Amino acid sequence: MAEADGAAEKVTTEMAAASLADPALEQSHGRIFIKTILNGAEEFVGRRVVVGGWVKTGREQGKGAFAFLELNDGSCLANLQVIVDAGVCSLAQLTPTGTSVLIEGELKKPPEGVKQSVELRVEKVLEVGPVDSAKYPLPKTRLTLEFLRDFVHFRARTNTISAVARIRNELAYATHTFFRENGFRYVHTPIITTSDCEGAGEMFQVTTLFSEAEKIEKELNQNPPPQESDIEAAKLIVKEKGESVSHLKSLKASKDKIVGAVSELTKAKESLAKLEERFNMKGGIPHKEGKIDYAHDFFGRQAFLTVSGQLQVETYACALGNVYTFGPTFRAEHSHTSRHLAEFWMVEPEIAFANLEDDMNYAESYVKFLCKWLLDHCLEDMEFMVKNVDKTAIERLKLVSLMPFERISYTKAVQLLENVTDKEFENKVEWGVDLASEHERYLTEVIFQKPVIVYNYPKSIKAFYMRQNDDGKTVAAMDVLVPKVGELIGGSQREERLDVLKQRILEMGLPLEPYEWYLDLRRFGTVKHCGFGLGFERMVLFATGLDNIRDVIPFPRYPGRADL
Amino acid sequence: MAEADGAAEKVTTEMAAASLADPALEQSHGRIFIKTILNGAEEFVGRRVVVGGWVKTGREQGKGAFAFLELNDGSCLANLQVIVDAGVCSLAQLTPTGTSVLIEGELKKPPEGVKQSVELRVEKVLEVGPVDSAKYPLPKTRLTLEFLRDFVHFRARTNTISAVARIRNELAYATHTFFRENGFRYVHTPIITTSDCEGAGEMFQVTTLFSEAEKIEKELNQNPPPQESDIEAAKLIVKEKGESVSHLKSLKASKDKIVGAVSELTKAKESLAKLEERFNMKGGIPHKEGKIDYAHDFFGRQAFLTVSGQLQVETYACALGNVYTFGPTFRAEHSHTSRHLAEFWMVEPEIAFANLEDDMNYAESYVKFLCKWLLDHCLEDMEFMVKNVDKTAIERLKLVSLMPFERISYTKAVQLLENVTDKEFENKVEWGVDLASEHERYLTEVIFQKPVIVYNYPKSIKAFYMRQNDDGKTVAAMDVLVPKVGELIGGSQREERLDVLKQRILEMGLPLEPYEWYLDLRRFGTVKHCGFGLGFERMVLFATGLDNIRDVIPFPRYPGRADL
Repeated sequence: MAEADGAAEKVTTEMAAASLADPALEQSHGRIFIKTILNGAEEFVGRRVVVGGWVKTGREQGKGAFAFLELNDGSCLANLQVIVDAGVCSLAQLTPTGTSVLIEGELKKPPEGVKQSVELRVEKVLEVGPVDSAKYPLPKTRLTLEFLRDFVHFRARTNTISAVARIRNELAYATHTFFRENGFRYVHTPIITTSDCEGAGEMFQVTTLFSEAEKIEKELNQNPPPQESDIEAAKLIVKEKGESVSHLKSLKASKDKIVGAVSELTKAKESLAKLEERFNMKGGIPHKEGKIDYAHDFFGRQAFLTVSGQLQVETYACALGNVYTFGPTFRAEHSHTSRHLAEFWMVEPEIAFANLEDDMNYAESYVKFLCKWLLDHCLEDMEFMVKNVDKTAIERLKLVSLMPFERISYTKAVQLLENVTDKEFENKVEWGVDLASEHERYLTEVIFQKPVIVYNYPKSIKAFYMRQNDDGKTVAAMDVLVPKVGELIGGSQREERLDVLKQRILEMGLPLEPYEWYLDLRRFGTVKHCGFGLGFERMVLFATGLDNIRDVIPFPRYPGRADL
Repeated sequence: MAEADGAAEKVTTEMAAASLADPALEQSHGRIFIKTILNGAEEFVGRRVVVGGWVKTGREQGKGAFAFLELNDGSCLANLQVIVDAGVCSLAQLTPTGTSVLIEGELKKPPEGVKQSVELRVEKVLEVGPVDSAKYPLPKTRLTLEFLRDFVHFRARTNTISAVARIRNELAYATHTFFRENGFRYVHTPIITTSDCEGAGEMFQVTTLFSEAEKIEKELNQNPPPQESDIEAAKLIVKEKGESVSHLKSLKASKDKIVGAVSELTKAKESLAKLEERFNMKGGIPHKEGKIDYAHDFFGRQAFLTVSGQLQVETYACALGNVYTFGPTFRAEHSHTSRHLAEFWMVEPEIAFANLEDDMNYAESYVKFLCKWLLDHCLEDMEFMVKNVDKTAIERLKLVSLMPFERISYTKAVQLLENVTDKEFENKVEWGVDLASEHERYLTEVIFQKPVIVYNYPKSIKAFYMRQNDDGKTVAAMDVLVPKVGELIGGSQREERLDVLKQRILEMGLPLEPYEWYLDLRRFGTVKHCGFGLGFERMVLFATGLDNIRDVIPFPRYPGRADL
């Protein structure tokens, strides 16, 4: 114990030296981010620093007299050039790609003509995490994104995936900042839900029935259930003990004797009850009248993973005014496309005392804010995308952040598409059909060459909660279409009139009962309100220009795959 | 169609008038938040504004000549005092608690001696969402938090729950801001996982097997499966068609005839295959060798809801350095306590090139930042908590934000607790046992009267991934204990040594195979790293002083309950 405490005291003493005035500068050994060094190169020349990171490329030079390392610590895309003399450390250990090092040295101005603004001359190698090149799954050669999907635990070490991670991070912070600046509150809507939003979309079920069944089966195997004869025997004992009590009572026996007999009877009854419980215990999924009996499930009923937080967040909009949710959502669809995930993140604002026009204004304002934010905070990673993925990526952000979005009615959009002569669509366009991705992209990429908001869709193709327009045919819905991905946002003004909403639910063939709480919002203090949803991964695709949604989320889930 | 478009054009025209230069001021009709008015009361006197909100209390006065309304829009705790003359609107419609109104009028300085700094004289009632008081589930009387749990769709309209929502919102934004300022990147770890972190904790299973089984049963009911005789008949046809092909070939028949016969054979084979598929189709959950066959489940294997994003976020820490995850986590435990939820949110930072000391520094710094943030950004709601929930709530925030946390080893903590004479603990304390909540609270509330970090726990009571100390008995783990809730944060330095980690996994009786990807992080470029987890709801309990965790999350999930 004295020893254990000794180790502890050391920590406490060392700790006293640490200060978190600028924690980024004060991590153990005073490690400093490479980004900080490269951003302030001039002022760092001549300073001693500690840097940690992973070797991107390493090569020995001068016949093994020294080695150059390109070191990356994830704080930015750029690497720090590092020079190690053979006298400092065994160079062969440092050069393999993927090796981690924590090193100390002096930052120097490199010789004229070198592109780096600063380089690190290593004086001490504090720690090394070696790599056996022959076994490392990520060789130095250029790897396809598809190949990397089989190594989700390593792929963040590549330029593309780490740039995506930084862009994603900026988009998340920009989201919270935009809504905060506009008076919105972040609300955590439930992930496990007993409401099926829209009655649409395949849902994942959440259950403990399998594990409960397994537990019971295990228990029954270890401890076989009683036989019918055991039950009969126990019943006999209860009967005897009962008769014994009656007998003593009829004899007017002493109180002690009667109490004793009653106590024996109670024990016999308890033991019978236990036997009967175990006798009736069955392995497998519990059924009742031929159907699975969800009364035995964790929540006492069927529960699912949410497909949208909208309906729930409306309860908060009808109390706090401007709110939003930002969380994971799920679809159990067997789609193997480059645009679908089983688990993805959605941003869903909901606004009270607001109509479709407000909805469009907020949606446009939000998307512009995101684009401008990336240009202001993530330019290096965006430049990488332009060089390696999509040369129009930055142009697209600028276009969207500056140009007012076009706004056209669905009716107008259909007219425009019907008149297209230079392209044959796979899906026919006519008033009443939902626009396909090819139509959406044609509108935004070819006809308007900028973002387009299409509004007032036919009610027959939209959800029950969208507000019916006075024409009786359309609802106050809107979609924001952008070049590269098509639909980025879908939203609507919500039906705030109790009678109209009820009628729409029934028209869609849905039962009223599960929506009573939702109808309550219209029964008591109803307000006009609206909202929209932005698929967060769609936004990352739009920003980066990447093609496959599996590459813009850290751990993609799709049919047959849920690694880690 | 022209009509539909007409409605649309109107929207476009109206829209042109809207500007989002300050969107908070420019929502439809230029609605302004009550918070904005009350914060700048002086400058608003004399201005015409539009305000929307829900009536907290309303009363007619002056024999029905006018009405006073206390109006709340959720932007802040305080209500705006509103005066409506009988000439403007039917007063009886406005006064019931819960009524929503969108109103326009002039802000005036109230008569001397009135506590409000400004009041609204209504000139126009733009919209009303009425309430039938007799039916409204939230009467004006004071309601218990327990009662409100049966009305999660309305409870955000109460002072306590809306204050909690604002505090929660601030804590979330403070979290993102703290980590951003310290060079961390937000990483979305998966919600659906095939890894069981720690092998501990009951997990919810995610499945589509039930819905698939239902679909098949429905299909089989509508369209009964073929009989064995149908299969035999189809087989016979295949045989005949095959013989016919052979026969034609042996006769050296024309190419056309042979092609025709082969085509008939192919059709017969296809039709047999279809029949066999439907013949083998079975309702119910698919089994193989007596066990459920998860190869048929959505991900081709068992999948669960995450209990922690730590293991996965480590993959990003070992690439980007400083990262964190903030998302929902799940425990399928049948606990009905005031401290447990089946669905809750966790903040989990993970830091590369860092040790236990760094971990404690970051944890302390983060908690201090949160407390200070609430004092700076949420004082009105905190004052409400002091008045109505816990009179020490603000004191506690100040204490924690200012005082350095005590740091003691587990060994020292046990010694201190063993020497306690003024209290009888329910659970015995001795070196080697896990500290119970009563011990943790005694340390922080009685002995030190400030937050305490306990570090270096016995390895036998901690998870396999925690770094073993040189004493061989303890691991580099730490818990942050705070008054009111006890354990707020748990963290550790992670075992970065491949051989030690493997040995620990095996010692715990866990299989190596599912952790191969985790071991890979140590095989290739391993780094010292550490991290911790903060239960977000625990933090809200700590800040507000509320007693029940079901009141600090918008939609609580616990055994038997998952409303909405």
